[in-house]
Amino acid sequence: MTGEKEKLGLIGFGAFGRLTARHLSPWFDILAHDPAATPGFGGGEGVATLTDLATAAACPTVVLAVPVEALEATLIAIRPHLAPAALVIDVGSVKVKPAQAMDALLPHGVRIVGTHPLFGPQSGKDGIAGLRIAVCEVRGGKDARRVAAFCRRALGLKVFSVSPEDHDREAATVQGLTHLIARVLMAMEPLPTRMTTASFDRLMQAVDMVRHDSPAVFRAIERDNPFAAEVRERFFALADQARGTAGEG
Amino acid sequence: MTGEKEKLGLIGFGAFGRLTARHLSPWFDILAHDPAATPGFGGGEGVATLTDLATAAACPTVVLAVPVEALEATLIAIRPHLAPAALVIDVGSVKVKPAQAMDALLPHGVRIVGTHPLFGPQSGKDGIAGLRIAVCEVRGGKDARRVAAFCRRALGLKVFSVSPEDHDREAATVQGLTHLIARVLMAMEPLPTRMTTASFDRLMQAVDMVRHDSPAVFRAIERDNPFAAEVRERFFALADQARGTAGEG
Repeated sequence: MTGEKEKLGLIGFGAFGRLTARHLSPWFDILAHDPAATPGFGGGEGVATLTDLATAAACPTVVLAVPVEALEATLIAIRPHLAPAALVIDVGSVKVKPAQAMDALLPHGVRIVGTHPLFGPQSGKDGIAGLRIAVCEVRGGKDARRVAAFCRRALGLKVFSVSPEDHDREAATVQGLTHLIARVLMAMEPLPTRMTTASFDRLMQAVDMVRHDSPAVFRAIERDNPFAAEVRERFFALADQARGTAGEG
Repeated sequence: MTGEKEKLGLIGFGAFGRLTARHLSPWFDILAHDPAATPGFGGGEGVATLTDLATAAACPTVVLAVPVEALEATLIAIRPHLAPAALVIDVGSVKVKPAQAMDALLPHGVRIVGTHPLFGPQSGKDGIAGLRIAVCEVRGGKDARRVAAFCRRALGLKVFSVSPEDHDREAATVQGLTHLIARVLMAMEPLPTRMTTASFDRLMQAVDMVRHDSPAVFRAIERDNPFAAEVRERFFALADQARGTAGEG
């Protein structure tokens, strides 16, 4: 049916895997594997064919849309099935640990690029053009540049080429703060929805965008980013200061 | 020049007073007084005539656009100059204390309505139609209903008619949380502006909307709202819980 397009193996067909398949399916014949999904033609939502792990892992390009905490086990599982010069790309919210794991566990010859799409099923639900993605070189700059060019031209994304370290330092603030604040505000719910201000509305829009993120995304941001603890401590130290001065003017 | 319009006295010609004058000047001949401004035709920005306190206070309608903490002194200052059946309206961010002060300090016969425009110079800079205002009955419901109808029809605002207590309870959450979070995030600046997510962008838009609020607005929200301390304590208690669980998953 779609035999003219190059095959792309997609490991993980959760909410983000499905978003990935939807946007890559115009360019690739997507063979998706998810341990929770049954292989067959019915489950791919018209944008992918569900298949077994070995078939998906044998494609020339393999995208790993699995939780960061499941990455190592996934790398070990796909390793025997990878083509000698396969291009493996992850999409995790942190980059230092996944880059190290991919480099340590994947055979020499396999090409590796780290990416972090700075959007999710919620913020990307009305289209992803104009949204942001970070692209990290892991093994050689040439593949990273090709992936970056594809993201820019084919997907219309704003691409940031950064090292895994620079990515994690910046993401620790951006995602760490958003998730911390969302976590506290969600715990305060129900919150007013009627007599609100424009700034409060913005705050709640921010919460709504991460409210359905999986617990694994929260864990990746809070535990697997080496700079997360530092940002968190700074936030709480400043909150304590604000606690001390609020009410005193 | 504008002799056909009814006169409206505006006490306070700061950022919010000027916003008020801009939107009321099509309907009223505005005589504004601000202790920091020099009377004369030059300083009214084309939407008001700057004048002395006595002249502004003698208008049939008097709007008090002064900081909540300056309200009592303002009431005492204007009292001798008010017309016997003047309509006095405040615009403070809290309503319980101002309503009590106006009722206690203004002569019998003077009509009083409390309002809280749920916007400021920042969120209202591109127009105020569609934004929200709370209207509180202080002395008699008829004047509050007239003010509400004017806000709805002439200014296009969404009007919430509430008691001062209900207003302050809800505002303590809406404004208290926004200002607390903005205070902590501003203390963390400089924050990333490049590799951001849509939810982080919303968070920073919320901060930008209150970043230039005067310290007096912060003080009114944090000190003069009887429910503020409760909301603040709840936020910090839940933040402490998040602090304990973050990083554990």
